[in-house]
Amino acid sequence: MRDVAVIGVGINKWGELWEHSLRDIYVDAALKAIDDAGVDHIDSMYVGCMSSGLFVAQEHLSSLLSDYMGMSGIPTTRVESACASGGLAIRSAFLEVASGMSEIVLAGGVEKMNDVDGGGATYALATAADQEYEAYNGVTFPGLYALIARAHMEKYGTTREQMAHVAVKNHANGALNPEAQFPMKITLDTVLNSVAVADPLRLMDCSPVTDGAAAVIVCSLEMAKKLGKNAPVRIAGSGMGTDTIALHSRSDMTFLNSTAVAAEKAYAMAGGVGPRDIDVTEVHDCFTIAEICVTEALGYFEKGQGGPAAASGATARDGQFPINTSGGLKSKGHPVGATGTAQVVEIVKQLRGEAGDRQIKGAKRGLTQNMGGTGGSSVVHILEAD
Amino acid sequence: MRDVAVIGVGINKWGELWEHSLRDIYVDAALKAIDDAGVDHIDSMYVGCMSSGLFVAQEHLSSLLSDYMGMSGIPTTRVESACASGGLAIRSAFLEVASGMSEIVLAGGVEKMNDVDGGGATYALATAADQEYEAYNGVTFPGLYALIARAHMEKYGTTREQMAHVAVKNHANGALNPEAQFPMKITLDTVLNSVAVADPLRLMDCSPVTDGAAAVIVCSLEMAKKLGKNAPVRIAGSGMGTDTIALHSRSDMTFLNSTAVAAEKAYAMAGGVGPRDIDVTEVHDCFTIAEICVTEALGYFEKGQGGPAAASGATARDGQFPINTSGGLKSKGHPVGATGTAQVVEIVKQLRGEAGDRQIKGAKRGLTQNMGGTGGSSVVHILEAD
Repeated sequence: MRDVAVIGVGINKWGELWEHSLRDIYVDAALKAIDDAGVDHIDSMYVGCMSSGLFVAQEHLSSLLSDYMGMSGIPTTRVESACASGGLAIRSAFLEVASGMSEIVLAGGVEKMNDVDGGGATYALATAADQEYEAYNGVTFPGLYALIARAHMEKYGTTREQMAHVAVKNHANGALNPEAQFPMKITLDTVLNSVAVADPLRLMDCSPVTDGAAAVIVCSLEMAKKLGKNAPVRIAGSGMGTDTIALHSRSDMTFLNSTAVAAEKAYAMAGGVGPRDIDVTEVHDCFTIAEICVTEALGYFEKGQGGPAAASGATARDGQFPINTSGGLKSKGHPVGATGTAQVVEIVKQLRGEAGDRQIKGAKRGLTQNMGGTGGSSVVHILEAD
Repeated sequence: MRDVAVIGVGINKWGELWEHSLRDIYVDAALKAIDDAGVDHIDSMYVGCMSSGLFVAQEHLSSLLSDYMGMSGIPTTRVESACASGGLAIRSAFLEVASGMSEIVLAGGVEKMNDVDGGGATYALATAADQEYEAYNGVTFPGLYALIARAHMEKYGTTREQMAHVAVKNHANGALNPEAQFPMKITLDTVLNSVAVADPLRLMDCSPVTDGAAAVIVCSLEMAKKLGKNAPVRIAGSGMGTDTIALHSRSDMTFLNSTAVAAEKAYAMAGGVGPRDIDVTEVHDCFTIAEICVTEALGYFEKGQGGPAAASGATARDGQFPINTSGGLKSKGHPVGATGTAQVVEIVKQLRGEAGDRQIKGAKRGLTQNMGGTGGSSVVHILEAD
């Protein structure tokens, strides 16, 4: 396998984009990435999207999106692993370039969630859970993550305040991100006094429903150096792991095994690096408790220490492990299929030194963690400034 | 890129499988393929599925299916390109093994179409068309292929009888396939007197709504020889192409450009072979007119000669180009996400000499062509007995 690098990134302002269609927002992000990379063509494309079928009654994105980009003809594949679809698009593009099949590949992610009809966004999202057991019995994702939160509180003494710290920190970061859907700062009180959604989770513990897209251009490291427009960011490690789809099938609801498996592979592929070698991280904070569990599964903190760590400031921009400088899913928004791709966009900006007011000084190595469902699948990437 | 081979195949009896769930039929086919290959593990998995979200309200198949196979942990990716999803799963597995990332990969396809609620199967399938133009204006796939048929008749003089010959031939083949959904022989009169669906297409021009799954095991050719259980079938060529998603955007509705693009790439990768080098072929006959157009796009016949060729017997088992020995989508059934995978299952059986009464004697090289929508995407593979 040959070395692969990211040479271009594109994203648009996320939010409730009533005046734009799925195809519009995807093409906008994709063309921005192509422009940023300075390439005149792409050899193929991967699109991460969770459920354009249920959200906007449109499958066959491979044809639709290459068509609307004016690139009909190129091989294009849509990949899906619920909310980990965007990270999976990156991994698929990485594999295609690493294999030698293609030289320049676009990996994009998109979800248009607001103009859903039928059962609404919560119904569509529940298809990431086990339909015949979890969804059939009426539980949706706020309920499932509430179960995780309650189990974490019981087992480790994690507190409501510790979870609230995750939201406050991510909104503080998102306030510095022009693309964020909810770029306002909030306080602990905002979170603790927000309306209850599924006890113990409150509204401000939950990521929003978002329309958005993101895209990156990957190519061989050799080609990246030849092109020379941007400093290449090498994909040093890529790992994917799965777990039982149903939360109730796991021996420990508080530990995200798919993330641990994916991280182990990515750390090894990157030459045996570990948490202490990572300068900046984007994780999948679909709910505040998720970020706490993820930091433990990645090995940043011991099991049960994710909550105290969040409260201590260890994951803030000036902490030991700066996490979600983009604002994370909580503040930047969570268009499910685009989230994993946007995480890589943020890390590439950080490693290029182009992250503006939220720049982590001297960041040389970053990690992204993207997951589907309650962690039924996870994708982890390690990126390095070349 | 290293050489890649198919070493195991699995399929189940297709039809209206009311007593089995999507997960049941997929796991059955997947475990059969693993058993056929004689391997004790797989490194990763690709699942082709068009719209489990709309059909059975279940996304996140990566987690669900590795879980129900008892293989939680392994990297698993669902790929989608409408009815070309199954072929795309094969291509993705091929790339992963060719890249050196994995050694033994399962590529499967599945669709559970009969127990759909909501708008029904036709509504779900229409999401493979352009939702904002074609589907919005009420046209569904029988109507779109009827437009192609009418244009082909006007331009080339193709006749209703020529189209009917495709159905008669495919049912004659399907009658010899124990897995086929509709394994009955039919006559020209059966087709010509069947109920009109969308003029000029009649019921017996259309493939059915089907529940089914299929799976293959791919590995490096080197590993295949080491394992030694089955004669390896080499994936000599893999091509994918796209076209405009909307039929009305094309300059010539009768020519399947995505298939031509995909075939050109596959022929080249296989060392410059062409139609005359192919002993047995499986094509995407979702409607009888589709098979006629595909044989022209693959270069088997000149433009406009697909109809007369079908009527002449050139595509029968004893013809120059035996096509759809499995029965094709028409007789075997068309569980959309599984179709492309099942095509490879059939060709592998032919190249191993295990196709029973429908065996093409001495077949050494086969081709599969799988497409999405009205040809918005196509995947072509060339397989060779090693």
